[in-house]
Amino acid sequence: MTKSSKLRIIPLGGLGEVGKNMMAYEYGNDILIVDTGLMFPENDMLGIDYIIPDFEYLRDKKDHVRGIVITHGHEDHTGAIHHVLEMVNVPIYATPLTRGILEAKLARNGMAQKADLRTVQAGSSVQINSFKVEFFHVCHSIPDGVGLGIETPAGLIVHTGDYKFDHTPVDNWPSDYAKLAEFSRRGVLALLSDSTNAERPGWTPSERVIDGGFETVFSKAPGRIIIATFASLISRLQQAANAAVRHGRKMAVVGPSMVDNVKIATKLGYLDIPDNVLIPIDQALALKDHEVVLMCTGSQGEPSSILGRLSVGTNRQFDVKSGDTIVLSSHPIPGNEEIVYRTINRLFNRGANVIYEAIAPVHVSGHASQEEMKLLFHLTRPKFFIPIHGETRMLRQNAYLAEQVGIPKENIAVVENGQVIEFENGEMKLAERIPGGYVFVEGSDVSDMDPSVMREREVMSRDGVVMVKLTIDKRTNQLLQNPEIVTKGFKLGAASEALTIAARKRVTDTLAKANGSLQADLEQVVKNLVYSEIHRRPMILVAINKL
Amino acid sequence: MTKSSKLRIIPLGGLGEVGKNMMAYEYGNDILIVDTGLMFPENDMLGIDYIIPDFEYLRDKKDHVRGIVITHGHEDHTGAIHHVLEMVNVPIYATPLTRGILEAKLARNGMAQKADLRTVQAGSSVQINSFKVEFFHVCHSIPDGVGLGIETPAGLIVHTGDYKFDHTPVDNWPSDYAKLAEFSRRGVLALLSDSTNAERPGWTPSERVIDGGFETVFSKAPGRIIIATFASLISRLQQAANAAVRHGRKMAVVGPSMVDNVKIATKLGYLDIPDNVLIPIDQALALKDHEVVLMCTGSQGEPSSILGRLSVGTNRQFDVKSGDTIVLSSHPIPGNEEIVYRTINRLFNRGANVIYEAIAPVHVSGHASQEEMKLLFHLTRPKFFIPIHGETRMLRQNAYLAEQVGIPKENIAVVENGQVIEFENGEMKLAERIPGGYVFVEGSDVSDMDPSVMREREVMSRDGVVMVKLTIDKRTNQLLQNPEIVTKGFKLGAASEALTIAARKRVTDTLAKANGSLQADLEQVVKNLVYSEIHRRPMILVAINKL
Repeated sequence: MTKSSKLRIIPLGGLGEVGKNMMAYEYGNDILIVDTGLMFPENDMLGIDYIIPDFEYLRDKKDHVRGIVITHGHEDHTGAIHHVLEMVNVPIYATPLTRGILEAKLARNGMAQKADLRTVQAGSSVQINSFKVEFFHVCHSIPDGVGLGIETPAGLIVHTGDYKFDHTPVDNWPSDYAKLAEFSRRGVLALLSDSTNAERPGWTPSERVIDGGFETVFSKAPGRIIIATFASLISRLQQAANAAVRHGRKMAVVGPSMVDNVKIATKLGYLDIPDNVLIPIDQALALKDHEVVLMCTGSQGEPSSILGRLSVGTNRQFDVKSGDTIVLSSHPIPGNEEIVYRTINRLFNRGANVIYEAIAPVHVSGHASQEEMKLLFHLTRPKFFIPIHGETRMLRQNAYLAEQVGIPKENIAVVENGQVIEFENGEMKLAERIPGGYVFVEGSDVSDMDPSVMREREVMSRDGVVMVKLTIDKRTNQLLQNPEIVTKGFKLGAASEALTIAARKRVTDTLAKANGSLQADLEQVVKNLVYSEIHRRPMILVAINKL
Repeated sequence: MTKSSKLRIIPLGGLGEVGKNMMAYEYGNDILIVDTGLMFPENDMLGIDYIIPDFEYLRDKKDHVRGIVITHGHEDHTGAIHHVLEMVNVPIYATPLTRGILEAKLARNGMAQKADLRTVQAGSSVQINSFKVEFFHVCHSIPDGVGLGIETPAGLIVHTGDYKFDHTPVDNWPSDYAKLAEFSRRGVLALLSDSTNAERPGWTPSERVIDGGFETVFSKAPGRIIIATFASLISRLQQAANAAVRHGRKMAVVGPSMVDNVKIATKLGYLDIPDNVLIPIDQALALKDHEVVLMCTGSQGEPSSILGRLSVGTNRQFDVKSGDTIVLSSHPIPGNEEIVYRTINRLFNRGANVIYEAIAPVHVSGHASQEEMKLLFHLTRPKFFIPIHGETRMLRQNAYLAEQVGIPKENIAVVENGQVIEFENGEMKLAERIPGGYVFVEGSDVSDMDPSVMREREVMSRDGVVMVKLTIDKRTNQLLQNPEIVTKGFKLGAASEALTIAARKRVTDTLAKANGSLQADLEQVVKNLVYSEIHRRPMILVAINKL
């Protein structure tokens, strides 16, 4: 066991991207993991279900990992937990609601028994070997979120998680300004804070403004109200329930993830809906249209969600009908714009009136904007600053804000995943780079996806595939039949005959000259031929059959 | 020849979508086409290069088509011109710059000689059989745009094309308010107007605000300035040139489409850059960094554009270097957000400072916002209103604005492509539906794409393809060798051996029982087997080889 006075920060995810947030703090032989998130694939990551951080760095040091702290219950901070637990089964620290969400998630992956979950409260602290972690409450688009003060022998680190400074949150629990100021009095070595909205000027509106948006919707809606939002956005469910109470409507929740979250949040006291207001969906569907509000998922246009199915008329329990008012209480996650807007268009075409962020105040962000970020700098007064959670452009913008409030440029490190940062004797320096890329998950398995495989999918998605079956005399190397050509992903149509004739000639020529790799030669010949005949570059598969 | 007093409006493109704008007006035996646009594919339209309107309706009536009017030079209004001309070669009417752009476009498609292009001027009119078309100037993000007053025996139609009410346009040529008011005095039967920004409150800022944005950029930039924008955004080129003059920089234009447009616009007097300011790129690269500004394309992150290549380090003439200031003077076209932001991130990572719409006023929209749309209603006072150019949600919102200013709901028709609208005796009614869908173009050819082919591409893009080669004794129907399995788009890895063994067994069983379609039976067996062994649903290709 070597002893070192260095604190090492190892960014495993969330820096240079939106999603899969994961950070490791390393001091001597102690490692603390903060968050274990996933991210959803971009549009050109064909066939990928989700992406988790590359945490191979920890594998060699897995005996040093002392604990995992989860800041809040969103998938981009929790979603890789079962993958991480497969490597290191250490205690997981989380606030009550976050713990409830983790339990449900681990149960779905058959790991409920195995995990060592420990409840912590905002305002409390826990010593995890070299790290004393103090949890402070932050407002976000899910209740019970915390930021972390991490007291290490090298100094105090403040790590925000996702946050906003909402002065009038729906649960009346503002972010813990006092704790942030206290950190500042003790002296903050480094601040690591959320950069998601660093491009957005001003101050993110309070969740409370949604009340006004909902009030307008509820006042005008002639029939059913269907509100789609994130299953984890508990405060939005509370606000919809409050509006339902005010307007004498009953509320039903549809879809397993939202039903689960309502149960957990109600049980733990984060959601308070009168018993006679929350009713099962079948009862709600039996009421008059103007007496109900239905809450569901699908605000990102996911085809398998309730709203996705409603938009194409394949929902099992009920359909959209004329007179329905559908509210998308959400913002499209970057990359989802096309599918979200397509869903909205389809719902309009089915006769609903659709209300969404662009035309009414039915959503606000859960992340701090520029003025809140500047406040955070002033509250914590860190010596060093490392922007986290965001694409490079957002990290840069957060760094620019830090400079504006007086943090020297040389004390700011804009880095991406895998760039290790070291603190020693009150100084910061960039250390080595470790792998920090994508680990793709298809189905439930980590996939062996490599760039060549992704390129093959890309080729086939664009230009399809051609299988050519050649029957050859094994002694004379002569073609015995016309080549059989099968295509998928495009049609040959009229070109079919010409291609078959040309293929016969070119293959015959190639066979006459063939030496060495017949398979590779024939694939190349077919490839060139297909391009010259039909100007496509499909994937080529040649099946040689020697008689 | 039948005689009718009906005016028929046939929306062939642009209603229910953003792009491929095309409309036909039909009166008796006369048809007038307005615009012939293309649209770019959505992210899930795999392999498609672009989409044109389905104008099959016109084929049977092609002898009735009397002319084509093009409102302005953007691709979403011009891009299908050569496809339309292949069917009906009639006179094309356009203002000088639009004509110049059409000529260049037709020349690229080898149709320059064939087309009958006729220059019109804003403010003038032309009689095209039953239609007297009056061209009125509108501001937009390309010079020389016009809207149309179409006087027909059934009444006067106002068709805006794309427009904004810019009071201080860069070319000092505001939209023609007087003509719109004159139409109103004559009585407008129906207004058809651009809905693109119908969700946006207020008034679109003037192009002139870009001067301030550029001034800030030019004042601060320590080295080269590289500005990416649309090749057709001539006023932006003018503004960049003006800033270059003010700050003593030389300007070079990079990329064939932008170079072409600068030539056309300069020749026709729409662009005025001093001779000693506009220099060739090789001269610009020889100057000191703070002496140059480079204009290029690629503001949508297109991989083959200059900016796309700069972001990945594959540009031929020059690379991004530290100290460069790169400006994206543009807005991501919906669906392009991911690739645009990826390009920005990559440029940051290459050491450039990147300035873009989200963080500085370096772009404004070319389309009217809500208050301008309301002004248009008041200027033209139409009896009927048909919102055009936009997804359903935008058309609905434009209709909602029309109601707000007093147009009766029953006089507004929110329809999608293919819904024919008829006017007779001053009344509007919906007539039949005709095909109004997508015609896909791959390469330069209209493709025979059908939904089954697109589904095949989707399957392969997600799950890849498996080719299984089976060698069978043609008399005994017995498998003579182990099945050969080739995969593309995924790897079998460790599952390879198990799958081969299982395939051998299942194929043998199937062969024993086979009657009828051996090929189909074997494909089904392999499909089921692959799913049960590796939980994938790839495209299955079975090559049977009977010895």
